[in-house]
Amino acid sequence: MIGLFDSGVGGLTVVRELLKKYPGVDFVYLGDTARYPYGNKSEETVERYAVEDAKFVIEKGAKLVIVACNTASSLAMDALREKYPDTAFLGVIQPAAELAVAESKVSIGVAGTRATVGSGVYEDVIRELNPKLKVYQKACPLFVPLVEEGMFKDQMTKMMVRRYLMSLRQKNVESLILGCTHYPFLQSLIQRFMGKKVKVINSAEAVVDKAKELKPELFKQSESAKQVIAFTDTSPHLDSLASKWLKRDIRVEKVSILDK
Amino acid sequence: MIGLFDSGVGGLTVVRELLKKYPGVDFVYLGDTARYPYGNKSEETVERYAVEDAKFVIEKGAKLVIVACNTASSLAMDALREKYPDTAFLGVIQPAAELAVAESKVSIGVAGTRATVGSGVYEDVIRELNPKLKVYQKACPLFVPLVEEGMFKDQMTKMMVRRYLMSLRQKNVESLILGCTHYPFLQSLIQRFMGKKVKVINSAEAVVDKAKELKPELFKQSESAKQVIAFTDTSPHLDSLASKWLKRDIRVEKVSILDK
Repeated sequence: MIGLFDSGVGGLTVVRELLKKYPGVDFVYLGDTARYPYGNKSEETVERYAVEDAKFVIEKGAKLVIVACNTASSLAMDALREKYPDTAFLGVIQPAAELAVAESKVSIGVAGTRATVGSGVYEDVIRELNPKLKVYQKACPLFVPLVEEGMFKDQMTKMMVRRYLMSLRQKNVESLILGCTHYPFLQSLIQRFMGKKVKVINSAEAVVDKAKELKPELFKQSESAKQVIAFTDTSPHLDSLASKWLKRDIRVEKVSILDK
Repeated sequence: MIGLFDSGVGGLTVVRELLKKYPGVDFVYLGDTARYPYGNKSEETVERYAVEDAKFVIEKGAKLVIVACNTASSLAMDALREKYPDTAFLGVIQPAAELAVAESKVSIGVAGTRATVGSGVYEDVIRELNPKLKVYQKACPLFVPLVEEGMFKDQMTKMMVRRYLMSLRQKNVESLILGCTHYPFLQSLIQRFMGKKVKVINSAEAVVDKAKELKPELFKQSESAKQVIAFTDTSPHLDSLASKWLKRDIRVEKVSILDK
């Protein structure tokens, strides 16, 4: 079974990508909506939350855990691997960075939350792959609430895309990493603003491809697949968001990971 | 000592109001930034968090606890009073509703988070005070992120004020309750949009006046006042936000309430 977790609903874009290619795969997704969002929290807190989230999906049977959250991928991978040495972990950062490096000769742009950008993790990973590449980052803190309001094509969202990404466009970056799992919903708007020459990289797509490469045996499909979506807190707004994003009716489980 | 808590930084608008009138008062403020925001969480979860927050400020010596959070004020007052029968609790809803009722003959508008508006709590409280008044509510979910980005006078914020509040303006409400502790920062923008005839009610101001009425003995001032601001999680962005909002350098304490 494949495990995935995120601070909230954002990681469902990875589930969406997974189901697009492998609709009959076994998976368990945990969204830590009771403590969402992680983006403005400290490293220590994000590590503690990530370890608790991983515990839940591992206990459900996950052999590979996709950390479908950029904040946790940038801050908590070491803590996770140390705590659960027998489980494979895959963050969303490395696969997206590899794709961007393959597409770029001079410079790469990164859009993300304040925490992800502040951590400088994309810069580090890209420089390790190709030290000659320039990396320009931009924190886009309003993108998440705009996506969660479903304002994917709204005039307000267009204005914020322009405001946040103008500096990256002016730098003529060759690729732009959408460094937050919420951002794929803004992909077409961002692609239009950045222009056709810029390769906009959806990290959800990149991580699913990488996971298949790493553990192909987990991608067996069946008609009686076990597919679990769990949140640490639910609300009608969240449930409808999840159904709308995955374009199917889903049964959402509410779980507590704090009381264990 | 006066205790205050909120899901995050929003309740600092109440601290600001308190210090404006009583700069030498003893207080302890807890912002539960590690689990912020409460606005989209379930009743059960908000109750549990509020009880833990209250425990912290009561253990610090608070005799009166101002629940400086609309979501917790609308969902958790009964749970708090049941759990701590010897402590006085004051939410932000009742004082603002009383002011609005005093200012209105026909109709009142309420702007708040999705959770506050969905709970219908302002409607209930206002109807109990005067059953003839009409209450029109509007959820304004983007106001909080806009305030936290410091975009108090931004073009984007103006557009969202117009979009969210147009229907209330068209109903000719006589007063408008700012039903979220973040919103006082948008007060001048909202006042301008609603027009001079509409009384815009800042719940932070209303709750401080009510607290003084209720427990005047706690408002003694001294030069060696104990003033504590604590967060369950901190970050440079949060610290600077707090200092900027309170217009003084503050020492922020980081505490864990989960591990007790």
